[in-house]
Amino acid sequence: MSILYILDLLGTLVFAISGTLSAANKKLDLFGAFFTGFITAIGGGTLRDLILGNFPVAWISDLNYLIVITIGVLATFLFKGMIMQLKRTLFLFDTIGIGVFTIIGIEKAISLSIHPVLAIIMGLFSAVMGGVIRDTLCNDIPLIFRKEIYATACLIGGVLFIFLGFLGVSSSVNQFITISCIIAIRIICIRFKISLPVLKY
Amino acid sequence: MSILYILDLLGTLVFAISGTLSAANKKLDLFGAFFTGFITAIGGGTLRDLILGNFPVAWISDLNYLIVITIGVLATFLFKGMIMQLKRTLFLFDTIGIGVFTIIGIEKAISLSIHPVLAIIMGLFSAVMGGVIRDTLCNDIPLIFRKEIYATACLIGGVLFIFLGFLGVSSSVNQFITISCIIAIRIICIRFKISLPVLKY
Amino acid sequence: MSILYILDLLGTLVFAISGTLSAANKKLDLFGAFFTGFITAIGGGTLRDLILGNFPVAWISDLNYLIVITIGVLATFLFKGMIMQLKRTLFLFDTIGIGVFTIIGIEKAISLSIHPVLAIIMGLFSAVMGGVIRDTLCNDIPLIFRKEIYATACLIGGVLFIFLGFLGVSSSVNQFITISCIIAIRIICIRFKISLPVLKY
Repeated sequence: MSILYILDLLGTLVFAISGTLSAANKKLDLFGAFFTGFITAIGGGTLRDLILGNFPVAWISDLNYLIVITIGVLATFLFKGMIMQLKRTLFLFDTIGIGVFTIIGIEKAISLSIHPVLAIIMGLFSAVMGGVIRDTLCNDIPLIFRKEIYATACLIGGVLFIFLGFLGVSSSVNQFITISCIIAIRIICIRFKISLPVLKY
Repeated sequence: MSILYILDLLGTLVFAISGTLSAANKKLDLFGAFFTGFITAIGGGTLRDLILGNFPVAWISDLNYLIVITIGVLATFLFKGMIMQLKRTLFLFDTIGIGVFTIIGIEKAISLSIHPVLAIIMGLFSAVMGGVIRDTLCNDIPLIFRKEIYATACLIGGVLFIFLGFLGVSSSVNQFITISCIIAIRIICIRFKISLPVLKY
Repeated sequence: MSILYILDLLGTLVFAISGTLSAANKKLDLFGAFFTGFITAIGGGTLRDLILGNFPVAWISDLNYLIVITIGVLATFLFKGMIMQLKRTLFLFDTIGIGVFTIIGIEKAISLSIHPVLAIIMGLFSAVMGGVIRDTLCNDIPLIFRKEIYATACLIGGVLFIFLGFLGVSSSVNQFITISCIIAIRIICIRFKISLPVLKY
């Protein structure tokens, strides 16, 4: 098992937890929580695979995703007090998660000979669409549309990843640099309250 | 024509009616009603086929679905008073519908060599995603996330169906037992007000 | 480059602008605006291609769509005052857009041997689903469900296009007549305040 795969599962776990917490916010029942956690965790990758025509989609061919998601949802249900105290840890893994999902999305797209610019968009979709679907299901305007730099960190990371790839940097070094970069951008933007301009009427 | 196929069309009809009634609730026009009825009826099966990479999706290769949906929408539009008095009948067919959709989803997934646990999820998707999309379009939080035991009945039925299949029970007997079981669970839960625990913040 | 292709890109541009304006309405940031503009512009065609199993989806195999969308979003962001004064022009291109998208959707479906009635639905999906997804993301009930005759103009145009095709009218003449017809229906319905009946509870 590669480190990227383990990080992928960790990211999936954290996304499932975030989906379950959203569900709790809306007073959903256990099924609603499981469903929301599940969709949040697999939504981005599924949409990416559908658009790329890459069948079967990731979680259909590997049962580990479902197992990790089930653990995440049940743990949140049983120990939500404890889990909500882990906010810093969750934040870190969430950020690692979007970094890993971005890279996996780009690599899948590249392996299918997609144009690099579109591959970056596929990476972005992998990272953020789960959260977009979660917020839409829970009847909120997607958070990433007005939150601190989040999707933008993935975009910048994606451009860097493609650029270093062209320079011939080896895949694993490139992955490490890109994920670190995404984490750094997000933390810096939060600390210094940097955000994107808003379009007003 | 098999009984399952006829029940499938009946379920589709009832789903189209339920979508149209949702639309009426939101004061949508005839097109909005048709669209909502259509999406409610075919949404679950379409998403299942997309995820399984099973092309063409069901309603593209069989015009009967579209015909049945059109009948359901127009009938609701013209005779809504009468149809709303049929609540008990609609409830029964809706419950038969989710049972049938669950089984069809599982059988399709199994025929594509999907892992049984994931096949159950595909059955669940077939049964409930139409309603989820309907509620999302109509700007509500999906009903099944906080309603009585509904999706859970499909899940239990799905597990039973796979289990009896492993025991070698013939397909049509298995279908009959599973659908009966899903109907029984739903009715018992409503009568005795059994519901899933809710996750609160 | 055919005229239809140029009109397709023009329609995509106008859809991107309309998505960006929706985002502005909801005070989304630059990323949210880009994302909404992007989804509005490619949503309909993407869903059509997914349902038809027509991979890769249109905007993945032709970078021009992404370029046109980027121009539309940025222009709206930078010159929104000017763009909002172009309301009449935008309206015209939006109407040409749905006409062109309807025809492209039908032609794709027909080329995949889909039944003509379903091909019309695929044309309709191409034209209106982008707007439906935009409104759902922005937490509104889709506009086309209660607006003036809009989707219905596409439906009528689609029926006409199929009918003239059966009569043997050449493709480009047929395209011209159909698009003109869709534009005419929409303008007439707005001028004379014609709308579909609403289903009330």
